[in-house]
Amino acid sequence: MNETIEPQFARRMAGVPRSFIREILKVAVSPDVISFAGGLPNKNLFPLEELHECADLLMSGSDRNILQYANTEGYLPLREQIAARYARKGLTVSAENILITNGSQQGLDLLGKIFVNEGDAVLIEEPGYLGAIQAFSIFKPEFVTVPLTADGIDIRLMKQKMDAFCPRLAYLIPNFQNPSGISYSAETRQAVADICRGKNMFVVEDDPYGDIRFSGEHLPSLAHYLPEQTILLGTFSKTVVPSFRMGWIVAPHEVMERLVIAKQAADLHTDYFTQRLLHLYLAEYDIDEHIAVISKAYGEQATAMMDAIERYFPKEVHYTRPEGGMFLWLTLPEGKNAMELFNLAIREKVAFVPGNPFYVGKTDVNTCRLNFSCSTPAEIEVGIRKLAGAIKQL
Amino acid sequence: MNETIEPQFARRMAGVPRSFIREILKVAVSPDVISFAGGLPNKNLFPLEELHECADLLMSGSDRNILQYANTEGYLPLREQIAARYARKGLTVSAENILITNGSQQGLDLLGKIFVNEGDAVLIEEPGYLGAIQAFSIFKPEFVTVPLTADGIDIRLMKQKMDAFCPRLAYLIPNFQNPSGISYSAETRQAVADICRGKNMFVVEDDPYGDIRFSGEHLPSLAHYLPEQTILLGTFSKTVVPSFRMGWIVAPHEVMERLVIAKQAADLHTDYFTQRLLHLYLAEYDIDEHIAVISKAYGEQATAMMDAIERYFPKEVHYTRPEGGMFLWLTLPEGKNAMELFNLAIREKVAFVPGNPFYVGKTDVNTCRLNFSCSTPAEIEVGIRKLAGAIKQL
Repeated sequence: MNETIEPQFARRMAGVPRSFIREILKVAVSPDVISFAGGLPNKNLFPLEELHECADLLMSGSDRNILQYANTEGYLPLREQIAARYARKGLTVSAENILITNGSQQGLDLLGKIFVNEGDAVLIEEPGYLGAIQAFSIFKPEFVTVPLTADGIDIRLMKQKMDAFCPRLAYLIPNFQNPSGISYSAETRQAVADICRGKNMFVVEDDPYGDIRFSGEHLPSLAHYLPEQTILLGTFSKTVVPSFRMGWIVAPHEVMERLVIAKQAADLHTDYFTQRLLHLYLAEYDIDEHIAVISKAYGEQATAMMDAIERYFPKEVHYTRPEGGMFLWLTLPEGKNAMELFNLAIREKVAFVPGNPFYVGKTDVNTCRLNFSCSTPAEIEVGIRKLAGAIKQL
Repeated sequence: MNETIEPQFARRMAGVPRSFIREILKVAVSPDVISFAGGLPNKNLFPLEELHECADLLMSGSDRNILQYANTEGYLPLREQIAARYARKGLTVSAENILITNGSQQGLDLLGKIFVNEGDAVLIEEPGYLGAIQAFSIFKPEFVTVPLTADGIDIRLMKQKMDAFCPRLAYLIPNFQNPSGISYSAETRQAVADICRGKNMFVVEDDPYGDIRFSGEHLPSLAHYLPEQTILLGTFSKTVVPSFRMGWIVAPHEVMERLVIAKQAADLHTDYFTQRLLHLYLAEYDIDEHIAVISKAYGEQATAMMDAIERYFPKEVHYTRPEGGMFLWLTLPEGKNAMELFNLAIREKVAFVPGNPFYVGKTDVNTCRLNFSCSTPAEIEVGIRKLAGAIKQL
């Protein structure tokens, strides 16, 4: 198509960050680069054969409605399976309060739509999840950032900022946070609940990695401490299959009503065929057994990365020690630039994501995200050694 | 979850219509009701066996990436197939300008996001597509409505309103419009292009039914007359399978860039597994042969409905004579109320959708939408006879 007219876009698009990671990944795809830059689950662990069996079973039946339009909320038996999994973790959730979304990313878009007026404060962690910054940006909030400590969000600063800005939403990832790999301690969870209780706001607990724990003890959801004000986001992308884009929101009845209207306006409903396929998978196979396999593999990869860092990196480089998830976070000495390190590292044929996109309005940061789920322990050892070489040059 | 706090929602949600049709459908599901109320394709025509073959082929392979995260734009070979179908209809479109969306409904959400500031004018047909009214409402436009004539949008009024309101978008369905079944004549298409040419705005041509033509001659897309300012929306929901939620947007490069950012923020990408499945179906089977079967069936159903209306309805009830699609539109005599007719019709065990939700800010309308794709010719004959009885009572 020709473009003779300069299109005029809505103001809300002006502040939305472009995907920095896309650009990074373009550099990192070369086959001779060891990449810690991605954020993908390990595809070798996808239950392809099991899903093939399920597809065959589902499509051999006479129920042609698997191909028809469906209701906006999602397939009720799938929502019941999700509620049952929460119950096994000690959290009482009704299937009626669960909306199926296109990954938890769509949950962020829908929550932004129904809650955030231009200029409303939204509290997020620093560093924070890039996808959430992108999704909320469309609704032009004022981001209020609170730094993470080794035990989760900085409680003293969170309290200050809650009082000063009265945010509508606080978006938090208490388990193996993306990008930092940090988890909230039980005390931090309790303190977050105490700070938020009774205020006219919701805590959005995003928990894409919570099931993928390879060390330490399971800790309760924020919903355990603050049930009436916690909205939960979940996804099957890290535990079963990312390509289906199958996530969910758990929200109180009144919020659900608005979410359903927004979801219907956004895309009527999530792919119903893959909802049915996933439901059958969960009915026929033991997802916990499958998750145990993933957790064991990621644990070995994380250990390989931490061991190699201990061995090769100078002591001035700090790193987090994740107990689950897919990421580890480096902090270079004060004044060092992660983007410069990236450029040096690429010459050494190793890639990672410089911390920049995980901050709101900060550049030249000295932090880096390293993914360990997609490389073997041997590749990790080599990659970290190369990265150590780049750090020395820096 | 308890709800002790009254949640405060964003202002944008205040004006979004709830789904009126949902409420209607609840009444219409009783098995002894003949329902012309739905808007579903006929499930007996879904290519279930063919898609089963394709799923088997796809999942027997060794490409585990069918289950992995994928790029935001969509699977390139699928976008190439879509471009090739446009080419067969005489329209040159590059795969690079195609974004895969969750049905064309998501196209509306994304276009609203990137183009519509609060208070911006958006021109729509009256009656207009309910889903578009819902999707755009979230962005708080001023809707500018232009009535339909038997030849499509009223050109004289469209010109007036274009001059008076300078809309950012004009949302039009030139083929077998939902809800009216009306198609734009070649002259109307040319005139729409002439009115819009050179103005800083886009025509959004939604064409979910264009392939389902059972009489008359194919007419060119508005993009044929106004290539540089037409954004096309398309979907496989009516031609292959609705449950996959597989639609697309065709847009100029600069618009695509913004759409991709908005799509990424909204849900990263559309279900990649079903993109691959649909791609394989299009590669292995002749979609045009399949569409011919659908068109023939819907044509017989439409004819049955028009014949029965001619036979049973009083002459004062006007109706459209669709050449394709799934809907026909009734206009009752002035002063008669479609909602009252609905209540009478339900007692006669026949259902339809009163025109109300297809208008912006009008109630007590005298129009009705009738769907013919989901009833047999025999059921249609009985249903129309019953409806004639209700009309007589009115």
